[in-house]
Amino acid sequence: MKKDYLYNEIADNIANKINSGVLKAGEKLPSVRNLSAEHGISINTAKRIFLALEGRSLIRSKPQSGYFVSPPNYLQLPLATASQPIPIANNREPDQLMNKVYSTMGRRDLTLFSIGVPSGSLLPTAKLKKEIVLATQELSDGGTAYEPLQGNIKLRRMVAVRSLAWGGNLNEDEVVTTNGCMNALVLCLMALTKPGDTLALESPCYPGILQLAVSLGLKVLEIATDPITGIDIEALKNLLPEIKVCLLVPNFNTPLGYCMPDENKREIVSLLAKHHIPLIEDDTYGDLHFGTQRPKCCKSFDLDGNVLWCGSVSKTLAPGFRVGWVAPGKYKEQIIKLKLIHSLSSTAIINEAVGNFLLTGKYENHLRKLRRSLTENYQQYAAIIADHFPEDTKISRPQGGLALWVEFPKHIDTGKLYNYALKLQISISPGRIFTLQDQFHHCMRLCIGLPWSNELALKLKQLGKLAKALQ
Amino acid sequence: MKKDYLYNEIADNIANKINSGVLKAGEKLPSVRNLSAEHGISINTAKRIFLALEGRSLIRSKPQSGYFVSPPNYLQLPLATASQPIPIANNREPDQLMNKVYSTMGRRDLTLFSIGVPSGSLLPTAKLKKEIVLATQELSDGGTAYEPLQGNIKLRRMVAVRSLAWGGNLNEDEVVTTNGCMNALVLCLMALTKPGDTLALESPCYPGILQLAVSLGLKVLEIATDPITGIDIEALKNLLPEIKVCLLVPNFNTPLGYCMPDENKREIVSLLAKHHIPLIEDDTYGDLHFGTQRPKCCKSFDLDGNVLWCGSVSKTLAPGFRVGWVAPGKYKEQIIKLKLIHSLSSTAIINEAVGNFLLTGKYENHLRKLRRSLTENYQQYAAIIADHFPEDTKISRPQGGLALWVEFPKHIDTGKLYNYALKLQISISPGRIFTLQDQFHHCMRLCIGLPWSNELALKLKQLGKLAKALQ
Repeated sequence: MKKDYLYNEIADNIANKINSGVLKAGEKLPSVRNLSAEHGISINTAKRIFLALEGRSLIRSKPQSGYFVSPPNYLQLPLATASQPIPIANNREPDQLMNKVYSTMGRRDLTLFSIGVPSGSLLPTAKLKKEIVLATQELSDGGTAYEPLQGNIKLRRMVAVRSLAWGGNLNEDEVVTTNGCMNALVLCLMALTKPGDTLALESPCYPGILQLAVSLGLKVLEIATDPITGIDIEALKNLLPEIKVCLLVPNFNTPLGYCMPDENKREIVSLLAKHHIPLIEDDTYGDLHFGTQRPKCCKSFDLDGNVLWCGSVSKTLAPGFRVGWVAPGKYKEQIIKLKLIHSLSSTAIINEAVGNFLLTGKYENHLRKLRRSLTENYQQYAAIIADHFPEDTKISRPQGGLALWVEFPKHIDTGKLYNYALKLQISISPGRIFTLQDQFHHCMRLCIGLPWSNELALKLKQLGKLAKALQ
Repeated sequence: MKKDYLYNEIADNIANKINSGVLKAGEKLPSVRNLSAEHGISINTAKRIFLALEGRSLIRSKPQSGYFVSPPNYLQLPLATASQPIPIANNREPDQLMNKVYSTMGRRDLTLFSIGVPSGSLLPTAKLKKEIVLATQELSDGGTAYEPLQGNIKLRRMVAVRSLAWGGNLNEDEVVTTNGCMNALVLCLMALTKPGDTLALESPCYPGILQLAVSLGLKVLEIATDPITGIDIEALKNLLPEIKVCLLVPNFNTPLGYCMPDENKREIVSLLAKHHIPLIEDDTYGDLHFGTQRPKCCKSFDLDGNVLWCGSVSKTLAPGFRVGWVAPGKYKEQIIKLKLIHSLSSTAIINEAVGNFLLTGKYENHLRKLRRSLTENYQQYAAIIADHFPEDTKISRPQGGLALWVEFPKHIDTGKLYNYALKLQISISPGRIFTLQDQFHHCMRLCIGLPWSNELALKLKQLGKLAKALQ
């Protein structure tokens, strides 16, 4: 009995270390003899443990050398293709599928691979409830009064303090709170553009941003984008004369999940400043890095106040709270004026509660857990895709965030897949909603912010089966 | 000792009945003999009571007939002038004083006659706190998840139920929630207009609406407005060909506070429908009637789905909650699409809490109290204006809402008054911020949503003294 228990515990422990990346591909495992001595188990039990792990494809033996961590099978999946959008701006209506996909938001009968937010079970809801109760007690007037126009001071202070982690050096006076990050983007675009202006974006791009741009009468210029390094700087350079404003999501962009290298960030910031093109930087996923290091932001290379850095807790803490912010650089006055006109105030209680939550160490603790869940999910999803999706399926290599981009062979239409999947209570985001051009019909985005379970694995396998049937 | 106490109590009791309108102008008071018998006081004490009330101008004696309630002295104040704006649309920038005035929002060192919201002490903050705590417990995910796109179902249901009181017959499916009423107006204007279109408004008009219109690139057509009946229908008729959309606040509009007669509402709705001009109706003050009857809305005369009816709890319950809604008639689909793009979701917890609060009878109870406070405030303000403001000062006759419009003699510049008043820690809203034209320089709006106190009375008297010094 005890032996069995120990056997399982040791095997699981090693498996976890491999899955979570503590043990990396190619690393050597202890010898059978060492494992046996370390845990006080027999040589035979130690052998059985290694054989079991080998059976799960987690390790492999090399003759005369011992056992090594296998490269995960998903790393053998080919990488998604770099996009090649047409270099002509347009403002045609987004694909109508977009509204269909979003209308499933909040439906509890569906497995929502389609909505790019962390599931409630991955969020610190009990702790947040307490903060809200405290906030109603702390605020004079119980939070019924308008906030100061620039927003809750605690929250602004904490956003400023946390900016040190990404190379920013903000003070609270440089930050304006907003109703979530989308509201920050709305204010930025309204401040900087007028109808007919051209907005440069990554491609594929978050559908909400495409819709927003079109609704403001802007022309959208989609720029070629690499799934590892992000927007193609040479492509951007060639199109500069047409561009009024540039909006990028350099850290763990949805749907691709890449992290733009620092040197690219620096170059883009200086290039745009030189051409007097403001850069709106959406950093709402920045805290969701799979690696140990919080990446820098474009804003950290901003010498001219030309970068409007936007963030929120919608992807890390509570989508339903609508708490976001912007550090608008030299455009602060215009942003505050528009905030006054368009929303006057954020929700006082919720902003106070989030400000307090960030002030304690609870946010960092939560982020650590959430990041681990997302990292593991990515690996789990990818492993299933490797085993159950059509041959030649390609995927992105997210380095953080909530999205995995799946590229099927050309002839698999994810618009059709969307309809079939819905019949199995599965919702996905088809690739065509991430562009205003004729691209990505064979791609889809999967949200990896759902809690891992056997049922979720089953749903993913069903998706794979459907896709194969569409071949 | 006891006699003195009784004397004061009886005198105050009668004074309160007069001030609160229980005893109406012209009504006969009991005879000296009856008052004495009723309260067990001497004839002499009864006589002293009447003399004291007469000294306060609350009653007057008619020879051989006894004592009668005086018409309140503020009713002897002349009525504010009907506006005569130029019938040419413009989109010039609002007076820069507007931003100055709004930047004082939330400052606790000032007496904020300038901000049109009820003071926290008039709001049911303790009850709301409880609702919020309950909401965090009731909502799955503790309110961290996005709401359904159309908004919280309880809140929508209660808005629909309450529509019966104003002649509406809404169902929950016709209501979309928004982040306060301004956000509802933003969505309506974005859905119905494009830059360069002309928007017809009352004059004077809420500065936030003027700012919003200009920020959306609209031309503003200010229509002549009567302080008792509202917008001049003949003036509107003459300008119809130019108008793309009309936005009115027919119930207790700020700053004038009138209630548009039902026949005018009906006529305007039919006129605009005939000319295919959508009507945005801002009914955010509709529940704040000084009289016993909740007035009807234009929406109750809407046969074509052409009226977009907007409301909120920002002026009745909690400005800082940002809870509002719109019943957009036939424009529902466009509004929902814009809501998706611009805000995605409202704050889940707060909307659930307000929905629950409306479901119980607590909201009606609170409204009754708030309405009584506002009615009394109006009378108190007006009495002080009658006694302490420059001769020939005119005022509006609000029938509800939070505002009193004061019109000084022509040569008193309320821009100057604003600056002087600020030195005494008093903030007012100068008339010029209620127009994009060259009007109202000698007018101001006072918020009557502050709790009455001796200090407030003193501040009002100081304002009067300053205005006299500017003569």
